[in-house]
Amino acid sequence: MKKCSVVGATGYTGTELVRLLSDHPRVRLVSVTSRSLAGKRVTDVFPHLISHINGLSFVPPDMETLARESDCVFLATPHGVSADLAAALLARNRDLVVIDLSADFRLKDPDAYAHWYGHPHPHPELLPQAVYGLPELEAAHLKGARLIANPGCYPTSVVLAAAPLVKGGLTDPTSLIADSKSGVTGAGREPTMGTHFPEVNESIKAYGVTKHRHTPEIEQELSSLAGHPLILNFTPHLLPINRGILSTVYAANPKGLSKKELLDVYHEFYKAAPFVRVYDSGLPEIRNVRGSNYCDIGFEVDARTKRFVLVSAIDNLIKGASGQAVQNMNLAFGFPETDGLKAPGVGA
Amino acid sequence: MKKCSVVGATGYTGTELVRLLSDHPRVRLVSVTSRSLAGKRVTDVFPHLISHINGLSFVPPDMETLARESDCVFLATPHGVSADLAAALLARNRDLVVIDLSADFRLKDPDAYAHWYGHPHPHPELLPQAVYGLPELEAAHLKGARLIANPGCYPTSVVLAAAPLVKGGLTDPTSLIADSKSGVTGAGREPTMGTHFPEVNESIKAYGVTKHRHTPEIEQELSSLAGHPLILNFTPHLLPINRGILSTVYAANPKGLSKKELLDVYHEFYKAAPFVRVYDSGLPEIRNVRGSNYCDIGFEVDARTKRFVLVSAIDNLIKGASGQAVQNMNLAFGFPETDGLKAPGVGA
Amino acid sequence: MKKCSVVGATGYTGTELVRLLSDHPRVRLVSVTSRSLAGKRVTDVFPHLISHINGLSFVPPDMETLARESDCVFLATPHGVSADLAAALLARNRDLVVIDLSADFRLKDPDAYAHWYGHPHPHPELLPQAVYGLPELEAAHLKGARLIANPGCYPTSVVLAAAPLVKGGLTDPTSLIADSKSGVTGAGREPTMGTHFPEVNESIKAYGVTKHRHTPEIEQELSSLAGHPLILNFTPHLLPINRGILSTVYAANPKGLSKKELLDVYHEFYKAAPFVRVYDSGLPEIRNVRGSNYCDIGFEVDARTKRFVLVSAIDNLIKGASGQAVQNMNLAFGFPETDGLKAPGVGA
Amino acid sequence: MKKCSVVGATGYTGTELVRLLSDHPRVRLVSVTSRSLAGKRVTDVFPHLISHINGLSFVPPDMETLARESDCVFLATPHGVSADLAAALLARNRDLVVIDLSADFRLKDPDAYAHWYGHPHPHPELLPQAVYGLPELEAAHLKGARLIANPGCYPTSVVLAAAPLVKGGLTDPTSLIADSKSGVTGAGREPTMGTHFPEVNESIKAYGVTKHRHTPEIEQELSSLAGHPLILNFTPHLLPINRGILSTVYAANPKGLSKKELLDVYHEFYKAAPFVRVYDSGLPEIRNVRGSNYCDIGFEVDARTKRFVLVSAIDNLIKGASGQAVQNMNLAFGFPETDGLKAPGVGA
Repeated sequence: MKKCSVVGATGYTGTELVRLLSDHPRVRLVSVTSRSLAGKRVTDVFPHLISHINGLSFVPPDMETLARESDCVFLATPHGVSADLAAALLARNRDLVVIDLSADFRLKDPDAYAHWYGHPHPHPELLPQAVYGLPELEAAHLKGARLIANPGCYPTSVVLAAAPLVKGGLTDPTSLIADSKSGVTGAGREPTMGTHFPEVNESIKAYGVTKHRHTPEIEQELSSLAGHPLILNFTPHLLPINRGILSTVYAANPKGLSKKELLDVYHEFYKAAPFVRVYDSGLPEIRNVRGSNYCDIGFEVDARTKRFVLVSAIDNLIKGASGQAVQNMNLAFGFPETDGLKAPGVGA
Repeated sequence: MKKCSVVGATGYTGTELVRLLSDHPRVRLVSVTSRSLAGKRVTDVFPHLISHINGLSFVPPDMETLARESDCVFLATPHGVSADLAAALLARNRDLVVIDLSADFRLKDPDAYAHWYGHPHPHPELLPQAVYGLPELEAAHLKGARLIANPGCYPTSVVLAAAPLVKGGLTDPTSLIADSKSGVTGAGREPTMGTHFPEVNESIKAYGVTKHRHTPEIEQELSSLAGHPLILNFTPHLLPINRGILSTVYAANPKGLSKKELLDVYHEFYKAAPFVRVYDSGLPEIRNVRGSNYCDIGFEVDARTKRFVLVSAIDNLIKGASGQAVQNMNLAFGFPETDGLKAPGVGA
Repeated sequence: MKKCSVVGATGYTGTELVRLLSDHPRVRLVSVTSRSLAGKRVTDVFPHLISHINGLSFVPPDMETLARESDCVFLATPHGVSADLAAALLARNRDLVVIDLSADFRLKDPDAYAHWYGHPHPHPELLPQAVYGLPELEAAHLKGARLIANPGCYPTSVVLAAAPLVKGGLTDPTSLIADSKSGVTGAGREPTMGTHFPEVNESIKAYGVTKHRHTPEIEQELSSLAGHPLILNFTPHLLPINRGILSTVYAANPKGLSKKELLDVYHEFYKAAPFVRVYDSGLPEIRNVRGSNYCDIGFEVDARTKRFVLVSAIDNLIKGASGQAVQNMNLAFGFPETDGLKAPGVGA
Repeated sequence: MKKCSVVGATGYTGTELVRLLSDHPRVRLVSVTSRSLAGKRVTDVFPHLISHINGLSFVPPDMETLARESDCVFLATPHGVSADLAAALLARNRDLVVIDLSADFRLKDPDAYAHWYGHPHPHPELLPQAVYGLPELEAAHLKGARLIANPGCYPTSVVLAAAPLVKGGLTDPTSLIADSKSGVTGAGREPTMGTHFPEVNESIKAYGVTKHRHTPEIEQELSSLAGHPLILNFTPHLLPINRGILSTVYAANPKGLSKKELLDVYHEFYKAAPFVRVYDSGLPEIRNVRGSNYCDIGFEVDARTKRFVLVSAIDNLIKGASGQAVQNMNLAFGFPETDGLKAPGVGA
């Protein structure tokens, strides 16, 4: 049993990590930290976990102890904070696996980080060793990795939808548009006017239009697949639901591929990916993936406009965050990729 | 045209007042105040009002100006604050009509106020002149009133449902139980953990059980109708919807009344009330009243258990707050009771 | 007072027409028809209208009587049915105004109708006289019109968003993509598996991808504005809300216009349109228009990708259907355009 | 591995059984039946189960085969139908365990069944051997049972909340009132006007008031615990959520028990029940149990009115139906009670 800790366990992704790890067959949860709730029992704050982690209380984050007593530390902390914690942990225990759920190690270019996040990267020296933890694309680099940048929720949904197209050179790289719709847990557990129930319910809005920080992350990964720089329009929208992201991706079809031909490409591309489900017919819906680690992908080919319309669906807290972090841990430790992640979606 | 002002116009009830008054045929909105948003245009904060109150900006609350320039001031301010503002306004202009949407003037007994609100009443000397503004019960006292205590949303729904029973001596006064369910706008516009979208959505919870501050208000009004003290259980629940309260009220049927007999009682009791709709068959649902000033009431008589089961529905922001305040103003000024309040519900 | 009738008054658009007309200062509702509910009081089926249309009962549709007793008949009937009814009505009363909320008279080309709707147009001889009732573009043709094709909900939201761009030749006509999100009332009042509460709630799905019947209607109107044929990708999505459509429209910016420049274009284009509100800053959200006849429009200009990202919001039952029908009637009769449509949105 | 079959696998409880059984460590799912979908792959209808039951297709229900090839058959069929199927199965295989999720074997008195369900009981001869499958009360009778009547969702929530009170003689048996609120999956998967999205969303309604069929079931179980006949008011409400029941139960406190004393009673009563969680502080909410087999119970004691206010929460599809059915199967076969049911709730 590997010993795991979760730093910043009071947000939605932290709590979801606690839930998933509490049921994982090869790990033991040794420590969950929270500055604000230190001393409180986890189940007092999260009653849905009663009977599952009854003994556990929040402790203040102490890098010394965490580095010594853990085999793997998950950082569910804000960007800017994570980089310092990762540096502190790796300096104390070079065998430790650190999986950062923030954006701090996702962009390989520290200048891009400074541009989009508004401050210099706190630890650019760590960037070269960070592996971008999208297992379907990076499985080879994850085994044995020590610092893993867990992808953003939107990038997971958009990059997985577009990757086979872009990698195969099957689209015009200037044609990509990603129109994404996310549930409110993606905005975190901190109450704000923008996530106050009556302001979200019975509505939908676009936000961060042309400026959302997940844009450079999507572009980095798709450019890497394409072999040349690629930019796109990415527009996130806030949905009045708790969990899930649906991304509708538009891309030119310059070679006139048929749906059948593209299905072959997608099935081949994801044949070894246990958490990607390609739809031969129909299109993904959030309810098909909610509560699971799947990314479902489907598409139509528009003969009139010569475009592909691709749709992907994930649970933003699982495949878009904590489930993917567990999947990354599994690969880093050489565990079976699906350990702890086998629950199907709950359906309705 | 009477000149109206709204103090504290940035919460849901304040905004709803602005919306209703902007469309009222006999009033002109002269001033809306907000400390935090002073200087901003109202439509910058509430875009749904663009084209309706385009010239209006928030101003800081100044009692001198408000008292001088208004015929009627609505206080959409927190309890504790309202009492001081009302005192300041009435001291400056004895012809002013002050309608307070807070709890400050609802309880006639200052000791009850101190007990349930945790501090002495700020202006007990004003209590004798305050009229409890439930027009269906107090119409006679509202004409010419200068200080009107606008009822709580839950009390409106519970008292109107039970009043004919209690007034007619048709139930056992110890038997009353009110189980109410409210939308989230009832909790105000301030973001909190308890009103954060993912904490409310797909759930329901009871809160303030045995201790909610609307309890003494309901008891005061029903006791007054009964002619003797009466206590009840009142349990509010938070629903994942924006607007509306449904109250299910249980009461003994010691005289064995039939549904037909009780319908006669209710139709008679509310024959002059333009905003109460008694259902001969079927039961009220929130969607029937949303967006309107109606209180819909229906019931079943349980021959097995010898109890009445009554159901009432209101829009908490209209009949439960701002619409009722406008209704009170209409009566205070001698306007037709329905002026500015004629919109039917929006249905689906 | 003009006498109005609503045929097919039991769906959401029919009921909404009844609601709006019951409050209109220049019309009297003389007849509402329903085959299935003939004989029932309207308020037994739609309790939210109690006290507003108390005397009214559904009658079976009889073209003879409708044509004789009405000045204006609204057809809230399915496509295929509407064309026959319109023909029957206009044959009996050539002064009658017929406003059809179905798709039957929207496409000017009967071959396009046959292609997208799967059957020949029932009355192609009426097409030349039908006016496409998007008042912001067609006001000149609506005065005195006798047969008005009320636009689809999605086309209203997409065409109004893109019209100034397309009319001004400011975009590449092959670049348009409209990603729309609609509430469930847009799917009608007939229960189906796809609109069953648990199948919709907490999810979102794309549907009719590359094949939705509103596509040719959007293309017809934009082509007409452009002066040459134009095709686009239109993708509708089903949102777990009751009312509202948000359309996110992507279009190339070949001339490198700034946001300021485009704002000038939009303000000029819509300067005479009382129901279009162009946002100088911020972007429309459904909650800003719910319950009103407004179409709100805003946009950002992406300097990186050289694209416009436009967002429009409407209430699909009002500006997207019944409110627009009333607006068309106002223009046909020479009434003030905003009569009966002055209610602001309800906000939260 | 025991072989299990699900008859009527296309409703929500049937699908949920398939989901739970697909992950159960001691059973193999051998057959899922559906008349309407026979021949279709289960995952074509329920994509959330792709990768979990890929080989499985619906077959027509054939009692001969089911009886021969199964160790346990779950009947997720309507009342009236289930009794015939159970009789046919048990006649063919006397070792078979039949777990009926309908109401057919819940009421021990066939006259009560005829009264509440409107037709004579189809197989009264089977009633004596049927065990009411509420494991927390009936564990002793479930081991080795061959015909198990799986309780209704509302009765599970109400009976578990009130059982310790009633069993201990701690309340006045005429004082009980249960006000329950349920998500829409409780109404089944068949589309109806009452479950059409816009008719449910943003609203709540009471239904079946004084007449709901779960009333006699609750009364039977509580009467049995009390040792004498007991009747109560039970009022169900329809909530705009997918899953979950919250029941608020009112009961007299004639002995003046304190909260502490009652907590001791509840903890003692449920000390051996792995799926009941009694709250020392706070009250249950649906979000704490959604996705799990728990029944959470909490309460307040009102010293003013001398009443208990109890609140229980369950996931209606799991503890209220399919999870409880699996729990019953575990007990019937002598498996650990929690097998296949260990998932914690999903939280937000």
